[in-house]
Amino acid sequence: MNKESKILIVGLGMIGASYAEKLHDSGYFVGGISARESTVSKALGEKIIDCGTTDITKEFVGQFDIVVFAVYPKLFIDWVSRHQECFKSGALITDVTGVKCSVVYQIQEMLRDDVEFIAAHPMAGRECSGIDNRCTKVFEGANYIVTPTKKNTRTAIDTACELGRILGFGRISVISPEEHDEMIAFLSQLTHCIAVSLMCCKDSAHLVDFTGDSFRDLTRIANINENMWPELFAMNKTQLLEQMSLFEKEFSRLKEAIAADDTETVKQMMITSTERRKLFNK
Amino acid sequence: MNKESKILIVGLGMIGASYAEKLHDSGYFVGGISARESTVSKALGEKIIDCGTTDITKEFVGQFDIVVFAVYPKLFIDWVSRHQECFKSGALITDVTGVKCSVVYQIQEMLRDDVEFIAAHPMAGRECSGIDNRCTKVFEGANYIVTPTKKNTRTAIDTACELGRILGFGRISVISPEEHDEMIAFLSQLTHCIAVSLMCCKDSAHLVDFTGDSFRDLTRIANINENMWPELFAMNKTQLLEQMSLFEKEFSRLKEAIAADDTETVKQMMITSTERRKLFNK
Repeated sequence: MNKESKILIVGLGMIGASYAEKLHDSGYFVGGISARESTVSKALGEKIIDCGTTDITKEFVGQFDIVVFAVYPKLFIDWVSRHQECFKSGALITDVTGVKCSVVYQIQEMLRDDVEFIAAHPMAGRECSGIDNRCTKVFEGANYIVTPTKKNTRTAIDTACELGRILGFGRISVISPEEHDEMIAFLSQLTHCIAVSLMCCKDSAHLVDFTGDSFRDLTRIANINENMWPELFAMNKTQLLEQMSLFEKEFSRLKEAIAADDTETVKQMMITSTERRKLFNK
Repeated sequence: MNKESKILIVGLGMIGASYAEKLHDSGYFVGGISARESTVSKALGEKIIDCGTTDITKEFVGQFDIVVFAVYPKLFIDWVSRHQECFKSGALITDVTGVKCSVVYQIQEMLRDDVEFIAAHPMAGRECSGIDNRCTKVFEGANYIVTPTKKNTRTAIDTACELGRILGFGRISVISPEEHDEMIAFLSQLTHCIAVSLMCCKDSAHLVDFTGDSFRDLTRIANINENMWPELFAMNKTQLLEQMSLFEKEFSRLKEAIAADDTETVKQMMITSTERRKLFNK
């Protein structure tokens, strides 16, 4: 990757448009593809891309050295299976998908031999979507995770890491797709499941006035994109169900201890949680 | 309650000392009782009380018109049962306890006829304890809840509300002990149980570097006082277990939907949670 590298962003939603803006501002030639004409016009009008289209053609796609997919996972897989002949020979493909195993192996399996896919996950979401909500500041201090497989070259891994640095991420890590998916299932997907379940417990409108920070903190992420998340859950189902069971087990252990007036167990769990939580203080 | 009212704070921990400081600064004559000599000395030295002692005598306690108990619930009940002869005739007793039904009725039942107990709960905690962590700012914008029973007089309810206003609370509410306990079980105790269980799931030290805001938000309250909370859980056990079961049911509904690839249910739960959460945006 060098200053001459031409970068194509497929999908100009919140993340895709933020990538485009940051890369364009950093001096790269940036192209954009969106399903919507209005999004392409806006991206061109606001000068976050140098060229853009709604048409997927070899002529357009074939001019780019790096192609970043910023679309939902199923659409990503579908796009590659239908249009991979459009990629320039030697192009590097990367993505922003929040689940890895179910995407990486499938894409690498089907991909042309003269094109390489290196998977990455920028851990920088917002509770809103679309080009109008783009924001390059969300990358600052955030994690950018590259998840190579045995099929990846050193060059591709280095390029993905460099892309993360150019985008301004605070920490770049390289881990396996499997480690990534377990970690995401526990830290992100499980916590979203908890927040959603908590909000679904009861019509809590009458409780708003009494709500302190605890409930607000636990349910902030209950404001969730219902189109994207079910797909991410489904594509990391095995890991997520495992983490959910783990949580259910601990929650039920605490519940049983409270029911049995087993103060010692309740206390021990609190000591453990307080001790472990200390590491997470920023 | 008027400017001449003498106020005694029993227990000079984080909340008790904050009460003392705010009331003293507001011009009231404030007394303090603590089990520790060093705490009394500090409270006197830092001028948050006008007089203080570790000895519970009729001579000392009997001079106060209002007595605020800022101690753990069991100690509060024990104190009243052993020392209620010390109260001045006509005194008004109030508290800061986070559970109500298991405290209010017991205290009112045993209390002398010439003394009235009006229960109150200042919803303003911190993750730290002790006189050194006192902070009158935590009351600003916070909820102060008065939970009268049929035994309480209008005057006592009004005085408790006035005390909340003098302390600087943002919102003063009057609800029944039963409504209070259900609300606290759901909004506060259940959320603490979730946070504790989540931290107990696994030794997550290796995940610190990948942790985003969701996990941090959900576990902030996992840093918990293991001496106070088991007592509060035990004293609101029926309500808490009910709210825990409600949550378990919703969590398991979500889990089963994910396991069965029932995207429609997952999506519907997310729509419900997003819709309900909007009310809680500050």
